[in-house]
Amino acid sequence: MRTFVAARSWEQYHTPKNLAMAIGIEAAELMEHFQWLTVEESWQLIQDPNQRAEVADELADVIIYCLSFANQADIDMSDAVLAKMRRNEQRFPPYSTNE
Amino acid sequence: MRTFVAARSWEQYHTPKNLAMAIGIEAAELMEHFQWLTVEESWQLIQDPNQRAEVADELADVIIYCLSFANQADIDMSDAVLAKMRRNEQRFPPYSTNE
Amino acid sequence: MRTFVAARSWEQYHTPKNLAMAIGIEAAELMEHFQWLTVEESWQLIQDPNQRAEVADELADVIIYCLSFANQADIDMSDAVLAKMRRNEQRFPPYSTNE
Amino acid sequence: MRTFVAARSWEQYHTPKNLAMAIGIEAAELMEHFQWLTVEESWQLIQDPNQRAEVADELADVIIYCLSFANQADIDMSDAVLAKMRRNEQRFPPYSTNE
Repeated sequence: MRTFVAARSWEQYHTPKNLAMAIGIEAAELMEHFQWLTVEESWQLIQDPNQRAEVADELADVIIYCLSFANQADIDMSDAVLAKMRRNEQRFPPYSTNE
Repeated sequence: MRTFVAARSWEQYHTPKNLAMAIGIEAAELMEHFQWLTVEESWQLIQDPNQRAEVADELADVIIYCLSFANQADIDMSDAVLAKMRRNEQRFPPYSTNE
Repeated sequence: MRTFVAARSWEQYHTPKNLAMAIGIEAAELMEHFQWLTVEESWQLIQDPNQRAEVADELADVIIYCLSFANQADIDMSDAVLAKMRRNEQRFPPYSTNE
Repeated sequence: MRTFVAARSWEQYHTPKNLAMAIGIEAAELMEHFQWLTVEESWQLIQDPNQRAEVADELADVIIYCLSFANQADIDMSDAVLAKMRRNEQRFPPYSTNE
């Protein structure tokens, strides 16, 4: 990812602010596929191989900008995700522990 | 991730449509940190350990919902990202190959 | 609106780029109210006076930033809406004219 | 607006949840125009009549879905905006009153 960006001299555009916007914009493109669908239709869309491929493509765009953001901000994405999941484990205990 | 969601019986809420919305909402929370900042200030924010930790936390939320979405939609996220990057390699040739 | 912004010397932050971000962020806060709800629950939420007031408040934030954006970009919002609606009238003819 | 929607039998799609998503998606399309621009470039874009017209068009889409949302949720948008601005007046006193 870092090599790809550097080879195109895109670092100048890849400010944290711009990359945060890019993540938001790609997320909206993903949403667009489901905008007017019922819940059932949104499951059907996902079953169709062509439509799933399109949706996978939008999801990839979100992730790619997340990776760029993490690179530029010097964030270790795996660490950040694991730390957050550990915190979520505590904030939202599974049902079995609620009994 | 899948285990975490199942242990809380959250699958009913984790429709593709709802998860796409969740990604968009978390992306906006990431953007919020940079909303009124200049480019310079957005780089400074990232240098501050406390603020970087907060931003890493928002980024983790985006990724976590992306992972949930991929799980529910039966998308292999690594495949999707690699396929997209290969396509981007061709769509945007590095400057050196343009000469 | 213009007076409100000027009295606080906020024009420096109210660049077209920042205001577009602000609209997106407030829109996400509006979405957040409906994120995990079924269609039926989203109609119920709207019927509850307190929740409707909260939602109205988020909607107002979106509109207020749209007005700021229009001011800064010298766009006449009524003109823009009417022009777009006229175009939509033609792009999407009502069912009765399709017979 | 209400007539336009009814004539196309679009009320079934115009749930509060879907319209909130629509506002978020159109807001992202507005952001897209400014995504990689510097502050200066974003002011220049706004000065160009053709680009301003395109941006006005995206802004109109946001407002049109806000109006639809207000209609469906039985919200008086002018009231909501005025109430919010009155509250903002108090939350953020103008500089002159801070002396």
